[in-house]
Amino acid sequence: MAAKRYRPQLTDAAKPATFEVEAVNGRGEMVPTAVAGEHPLTLYLDKMELVTLMTLGHAPEALAIGYLRNQRLVGALKDITAVQVDWETESCAVTTRKGVKDLKQKTGKRTVTSGCGQGTMFGSLMDEIDQVKLRKDITLADEQLFTLIDKVRKYETIYKQAGAVHGCALASREGEILMFVEDVGRHNAVDAIAGFMWLEAIDGSDKVFYTTGRLTSEMVIKCAQMRIPFLVSRSGLTQMGYQIAQKTGITMLGRASGRHYLAFTGRQRLLRTAPQPTAFA
Amino acid sequence: MAAKRYRPQLTDAAKPATFEVEAVNGRGEMVPTAVAGEHPLTLYLDKMELVTLMTLGHAPEALAIGYLRNQRLVGALKDITAVQVDWETESCAVTTRKGVKDLKQKTGKRTVTSGCGQGTMFGSLMDEIDQVKLRKDITLADEQLFTLIDKVRKYETIYKQAGAVHGCALASREGEILMFVEDVGRHNAVDAIAGFMWLEAIDGSDKVFYTTGRLTSEMVIKCAQMRIPFLVSRSGLTQMGYQIAQKTGITMLGRASGRHYLAFTGRQRLLRTAPQPTAFA
Repeated sequence: MAAKRYRPQLTDAAKPATFEVEAVNGRGEMVPTAVAGEHPLTLYLDKMELVTLMTLGHAPEALAIGYLRNQRLVGALKDITAVQVDWETESCAVTTRKGVKDLKQKTGKRTVTSGCGQGTMFGSLMDEIDQVKLRKDITLADEQLFTLIDKVRKYETIYKQAGAVHGCALASREGEILMFVEDVGRHNAVDAIAGFMWLEAIDGSDKVFYTTGRLTSEMVIKCAQMRIPFLVSRSGLTQMGYQIAQKTGITMLGRASGRHYLAFTGRQRLLRTAPQPTAFA
Repeated sequence: MAAKRYRPQLTDAAKPATFEVEAVNGRGEMVPTAVAGEHPLTLYLDKMELVTLMTLGHAPEALAIGYLRNQRLVGALKDITAVQVDWETESCAVTTRKGVKDLKQKTGKRTVTSGCGQGTMFGSLMDEIDQVKLRKDITLADEQLFTLIDKVRKYETIYKQAGAVHGCALASREGEILMFVEDVGRHNAVDAIAGFMWLEAIDGSDKVFYTTGRLTSEMVIKCAQMRIPFLVSRSGLTQMGYQIAQKTGITMLGRASGRHYLAFTGRQRLLRTAPQPTAFA
């Protein structure tokens, strides 16, 4: 792509991901232990206070952009002129080109909440889900899935050091990891990926979304909003996650680890190409 | 206790915890799979819409009471006259005796958010943390801790069936499990415990709180609010969880599994009584 991509004015305010604290084990020995960062970051949209996110702080600008994208408060990257993170004041100021129409009204209804049980989603995103159309002309072979599962393991550096974080990856169907984000909040990790996708002008419609977290309603909603047809998790799912996945027709795989997985919905996009183990004869 | 405990008028509207869905494994075999329930439940406090929680729905009345308690919207159980859950309308109506003073103002500032990254906490709970005094005249022996860790394993029935839930337990220091709650939202599990504690008139000041989830800021805040001096998790912690634990002086143990743990803060309440493994000579 020769055309220069549009970029808002951005700070580059990543926080260190881990810190060391002292702990004592059962034998009375001091064990220096890495812990994941957790910082409040209050989002201001055109000077209006919107929400405070608790974040690892590793990609705060992408997180802010992706949050606004996934909450449908901003329609396109070019509507944003600046994203300025200032950790001194624990704030992120986002400036839009023309302001956000009906901002007060859009943020008034903070009722539908996230899979963590008490999250915040503005507006009526569920209504939108009925209109989502995911591509049907696209498939994923199980061997490609196994490649992805294997590659994603190498990215989880914060989790390996400190635990207490969730990881999300955006990958090509060939298993190439395009982006990997870890955060103390799993919704933040998804939102940061959405922000990166806008910044890098990446189309989700032929991609795979991988998460270490559970497949709850909000996870499926956000993936479908990004038009991504494949959603893969190492963990399990909830009933509402399943129902929304059925509704959107997304290809949802859970318990994905090594060469194992369970395919819950959208199985027509999944091809079994891996050699089958021969029965013991 | 001979005195009859006060009880608000309560429905008994527990939802079934798990549902079965069809999945296909990598060998093309159908695998019936249990999934955890996930249901929206909108809380109304004296007819004012407060929040929608996504919950397993296993203890919705205790959840509603504990949510109001932990958000400091209701000061005592006797202020609540009725808690009525109606799954048809996915709502829970809580009625108070005298109304809640400054309700609009108290719920206006929804900024400090949970460890899931995008949760909702009303008001300025952080300010309150400075005033929390946890008992100093109380200890926990590591053998008691190991008993608790062993017992809690037997309670996690939904997790074992379906995954995708977090469990919380309130226990005596002798390792007896007084309450165990699982939910798709880990904050919900904590809140339901807080609700049960009010309903059963249980004082937290000599108890142990166990969670399968991570020790994030909000988890530590809620435990301290309930005046519980011991917080134990199977998982890791975040930096802010650590900082708040230091501030409150809570005894916080992470990575607790089998006979292993790491003690992060408040170590003076922890006694090592277990026989030490003899060095190989």
